[in-house]
Amino acid sequence: MSRLPNLVTFITDFGLDWGPVGICHAVMRGINPQISIVDISHGIPAFDIRAGAWVLTSIFPYVPPAVHVVVVDPGVGTQRLPIAILCRRGDVLIGPDNGVLIPATRRLGGIVEARKISNKALMRPDISYTFHGRDIFCPVAAHLSSGVSFEDVGEILPISDLVQAPWREPEIYEHRVVAEVAILDKFGNIRTNIEAADWPLSTGEKIILKHKNNQVNLAVARTFGEVNRGDLLIYEDSSRFICIGQNLGHAGNTLGIGPGDTIQLERARS
Amino acid sequence: MSRLPNLVTFITDFGLDWGPVGICHAVMRGINPQISIVDISHGIPAFDIRAGAWVLTSIFPYVPPAVHVVVVDPGVGTQRLPIAILCRRGDVLIGPDNGVLIPATRRLGGIVEARKISNKALMRPDISYTFHGRDIFCPVAAHLSSGVSFEDVGEILPISDLVQAPWREPEIYEHRVVAEVAILDKFGNIRTNIEAADWPLSTGEKIILKHKNNQVNLAVARTFGEVNRGDLLIYEDSSRFICIGQNLGHAGNTLGIGPGDTIQLERARS
Amino acid sequence: MSRLPNLVTFITDFGLDWGPVGICHAVMRGINPQISIVDISHGIPAFDIRAGAWVLTSIFPYVPPAVHVVVVDPGVGTQRLPIAILCRRGDVLIGPDNGVLIPATRRLGGIVEARKISNKALMRPDISYTFHGRDIFCPVAAHLSSGVSFEDVGEILPISDLVQAPWREPEIYEHRVVAEVAILDKFGNIRTNIEAADWPLSTGEKIILKHKNNQVNLAVARTFGEVNRGDLLIYEDSSRFICIGQNLGHAGNTLGIGPGDTIQLERARS
Repeated sequence: MSRLPNLVTFITDFGLDWGPVGICHAVMRGINPQISIVDISHGIPAFDIRAGAWVLTSIFPYVPPAVHVVVVDPGVGTQRLPIAILCRRGDVLIGPDNGVLIPATRRLGGIVEARKISNKALMRPDISYTFHGRDIFCPVAAHLSSGVSFEDVGEILPISDLVQAPWREPEIYEHRVVAEVAILDKFGNIRTNIEAADWPLSTGEKIILKHKNNQVNLAVARTFGEVNRGDLLIYEDSSRFICIGQNLGHAGNTLGIGPGDTIQLERARS
Repeated sequence: MSRLPNLVTFITDFGLDWGPVGICHAVMRGINPQISIVDISHGIPAFDIRAGAWVLTSIFPYVPPAVHVVVVDPGVGTQRLPIAILCRRGDVLIGPDNGVLIPATRRLGGIVEARKISNKALMRPDISYTFHGRDIFCPVAAHLSSGVSFEDVGEILPISDLVQAPWREPEIYEHRVVAEVAILDKFGNIRTNIEAADWPLSTGEKIILKHKNNQVNLAVARTFGEVNRGDLLIYEDSSRFICIGQNLGHAGNTLGIGPGDTIQLERARS
Repeated sequence: MSRLPNLVTFITDFGLDWGPVGICHAVMRGINPQISIVDISHGIPAFDIRAGAWVLTSIFPYVPPAVHVVVVDPGVGTQRLPIAILCRRGDVLIGPDNGVLIPATRRLGGIVEARKISNKALMRPDISYTFHGRDIFCPVAAHLSSGVSFEDVGEILPISDLVQAPWREPEIYEHRVVAEVAILDKFGNIRTNIEAADWPLSTGEKIILKHKNNQVNLAVARTFGEVNRGDLLIYEDSSRFICIGQNLGHAGNTLGIGPGDTIQLERARS
């Protein structure tokens, strides 16, 4: 499957108040006037690599093959590498080598090849110390979107050298799973890093959630309307991750669970 | 008047932090690479159908004929219908059948025809329970923007079957009007659901505002600068609705008036 | 250097919640369907001309020659003029005559010519009292982006008649500079109005910051990682202004310095 020409998606923790997102857009359009830039989120909490990784993953497979730029980059100005990853579906992921790009690669069929971004002809002529989004990542993405080939970004990196995912991979067993909370969304829903296909939920099933010394029973549902007001539920969210919510409530606050927490889910004996 | 090809406007209560707006953009571009998507607002308060209806109405006639998608959809996953409404000006409105699309139709010359969205060829192949923006509304809008005809979205719905406007229509009399507050904007201005043309204000006139057991006199003005600091005023806002404001103050807090409140305006005897 | 056709950048204090930004986009697309609009910021604090001026300046030279619209306009509806400024680099700046456009002109090679926007053929037919972004500034920008020539916007204004910059220009001496704080960014960094090229910082140098009756020593650094946690630093920011920050802290709060404050910087004797 080949990339949609000119399509670039864009995720950052810049916020929208002071202009950096717009500067990046303008830089990309200056390089490729035909570009279509899709802003996925610029509201990732500052430096939150885990949240950036979850949001990037959540857009697939809904977003067509394209160039995807993620700038959540606490290490800007240090030795961390700028990288580009070619995936089997045809997508190219661009960002810092801090793990933020890794979880999404599975939904894209896996990594074909990773490269260090080192070709200065694809960057701005003057590289700042603190704004590699503008000076490196976005220019490279714009060039790729206009037909520059992946091989031109720089030398190959062994895949095993890449910084790994910013979370512990779920441990999947038949009756239980140990996993991590990726984000709380704005409604307080607890978005986990469990791909729903890896540990399928069945409607009507009961799940035991264990967190620290607490445990609570959760009904599996498809929508919030299937449980009573105030009740907790567990469901496959629209991004195909397992998620814990509360009908007309804030599950994170109710359960005292937040990003980065380890949780265990068990299927209750019926 | 015919629709501008490729133009789609987009209103939701998704917020911009976690990615759903961007996913919808990418889905639409995947269907129609020539699409121009104009984001009107993604900051509608969660599930606030009234606010969504007011914002949609406020963009006309300034926005040219196009496809307009509104996803403020507390009933997603229930039996509520997805609908498309063709208006006399040439616009097509797309969204849930919960009234959010109705008030705008008057500014567009009225409804020509309403249809239930049921043609699965215009949707994503797998429909989630909780994200019909991505799976139904936006795909249909993208297809319409690229030339699919309105008749293809699904079967005709009797206009009388549509869920009505999410507010009580103003009762208009020569000297008074009973109406509803649609939103408080970010400055605290009280945006009513009264079309200014239906109850014209004259500069220099005094208006008596009645709310619950209170009443207060308001000067009609064109701009805030025409009244003293701290004074209340009533004016035709730039969206052609009647609005109550306070120069350098928050009218909603000052008057204890909020969205959904019923108010009465009377012309003071001169 | 000539303008990129169809490119318009857009800065306002409208916020993104209630729709005015989207209405402006749609109006511009109605005039020039080929337009590429780049949103730089719509989060300028309400009526903050100084912040608007700083953000506009900060995008150059990174943003290519284009039409740039800034609507931070506390004087809308008064006698203040709508203006257009042609700069030597080829850019056209559009906005109210309140100084918001002035600081950026230096980075664009200076002003070639200023004109009052008065050609009604380039505006919406009905001009509201409170929304000149929609009715005047954006329509004119869209026409210019589609090939209308600068001369057509209206009559020439003497450059000396323009309202000046919304800050006091820095007083530059060899060993010290007296300047103004333009904004605090979202991390609390103190962005000054000093062009770094006018008073170059050298790595390793010490700078004495004087503010009111306080003074503090600052290390010159290139990145936050070069100083200890909690330490203050002074650096050339990615926008080429001099900036004062604090590693993992909020420099503005720590130093009690805010927008509009006068500061003095002195090179410490080594």
